[in-house]
Amino acid sequence: MRGKFITFEGGEGAGKSTQVKLLVKRLRDLGLEVVQTREPGGSPGAEALRDLLVKGDASRWSPVSETLMMYASRADHLEKVIRPALERGAWVVCDRFADSTRAYQGAGGGISPDFIEQVDQVVVGDTQPDLTLILDMPVEVGLMRAKGRGGDEDRFEAKGIGFHERLRQGFVKRAAIAPDRYKIIDANQSIESISSDIWSQAMTQFSELKGA
Amino acid sequence: MRGKFITFEGGEGAGKSTQVKLLVKRLRDLGLEVVQTREPGGSPGAEALRDLLVKGDASRWSPVSETLMMYASRADHLEKVIRPALERGAWVVCDRFADSTRAYQGAGGGISPDFIEQVDQVVVGDTQPDLTLILDMPVEVGLMRAKGRGGDEDRFEAKGIGFHERLRQGFVKRAAIAPDRYKIIDANQSIESISSDIWSQAMTQFSELKGA
Ligand SMILES: Nc1ncnc2c1ncn2[C@@H]1O[C@H](COP(=O)(O)OP(=O)(O)OP(=O)(O)O)[C@@H](O)[C@H]1O
Ligand SMILES: Nc1ncnc2c1ncn2[C@@H]1O[C@H](COP(=O)(O)OP(=O)(O)OP(=O)(O)O)[C@@H](O)[C@H]1O
Ligand SMILES: [Mg+2]
Ligand SMILES: [Mg+2]
Repeated sequence: MRGKFITFEGGEGAGKSTQVKLLVKRLRDLGLEVVQTREPGGSPGAEALRDLLVKGDASRWSPVSETLMMYASRADHLEKVIRPALERGAWVVCDRFADSTRAYQGAGGGISPDFIEQVDQVVVGDTQPDLTLILDMPVEVGLMRAKGRGGDEDRFEAKGIGFHERLRQGFVKRAAIAPDRYKIIDANQSIESISSDIWSQAMTQFSELKGA
Repeated sequence: MRGKFITFEGGEGAGKSTQVKLLVKRLRDLGLEVVQTREPGGSPGAEALRDLLVKGDASRWSPVSETLMMYASRADHLEKVIRPALERGAWVVCDRFADSTRAYQGAGGGISPDFIEQVDQVVVGDTQPDLTLILDMPVEVGLMRAKGRGGDEDRFEAKGIGFHERLRQGFVKRAAIAPDRYKIIDANQSIESISSDIWSQAMTQFSELKGA
């Protein structure tokens, strides 16, 4: 049986990476095989593209180039990591996925949603996530947290508050068109409360977890 | 007045780079401003992508990833180099362009022509070349010449003879659908004869060169 595919989405510093780890641990404690991965990146080719994407000047790439590089790396990640894992029955938990492209390059960068869906159809096809958790919180709080992260992966952080407001709205709008798959999580809570909200959503979504 | 946009296409070792140089010199001798460039690459961002594309194992990237990376680098090249040059009236001579993606990833790699045209429409739009010279010759002769080139940019060379036959046919078929823009040049001749065939085509295409 095909494994389940869960993605985490949300703005900078919303707590995605923190919650990915907690969910993965919880699933593994049930004896499931879980592949924890992230985007951009997740396979050697995709990580090489990640470096070009997340470092350097905020205006280094136009939104069109970004969209195509994101999907080029996503195609590699799907082919080399995600599809093989799902096919052998493993669960895949991914820190950002295609909805980040819809938000950052679409809602934030002005790329036409139709174009993104055309590319998504070819690259992702029917490997759509079974559950997407959108960690939602005020943009300023997240950006302040992300600054604490340090390092040189700050290209998107540097894009200004209006950009980040647009992408927050982008995530919320996207969630509304497929409420079965998308769950908005209030990320302005303690780590434990968020984790428990996420677990409730996972239990509701997947009968496999019932009674666990 | 917008400058003219000329692209060179053809298989490995067909003599594209040799003929680009000769044409550029001839145009400059007429006093024209000419920007000589190449793909993949041609701008700093696009050259970084070129490195990922042309080096390493032949199967390093799937044809879908390649298509998207080629067009990501093309978007950057167009924005930073080609469009600004054409707008200030310069002529642009480019060693490979979108028809190489149609041939290598489409005819050679099996990517659907419809998908390539959708992406081309968004990235290239109406910045289509005014003249495309396709240097045509037997695949074995070209591959033998390309081997002499040395260096580590041999990813596509390594793809086997059937692949290269498909892309030769791809170029020829493409030329047939827009004979005003595409000119097939017999590249199995001396450097001088090819150069003179190319100059005849350029004179026919561009009234600006008449009497030169
Ligand atoms: N609920 C929370 N309350 C307070 N701080 C938190 C909470 N969750 C995470 N943090 C802290 O905020 C910072 C950002 O968290 P995390 O890296 O998980 O976010 P992220 O969404 O993955 O960020 P990025 O967009 O940078 O990848 C970290 O220092 C983390 O410890
Ligand atoms: N008409 C010709 N006759 C014989 N040799 C040639 C001719 N034109 C070019 N060559 C030689 O063949 C080799 C390949 O030529 P060139 O680099 O111009 O081809 P190319 O199409 O740019 O190749 P690549 O696909 O590797 O970029 C070079 O060593 C060049 O000097
Ligand atoms: Mg993170
Ligand atoms: Mg060359």
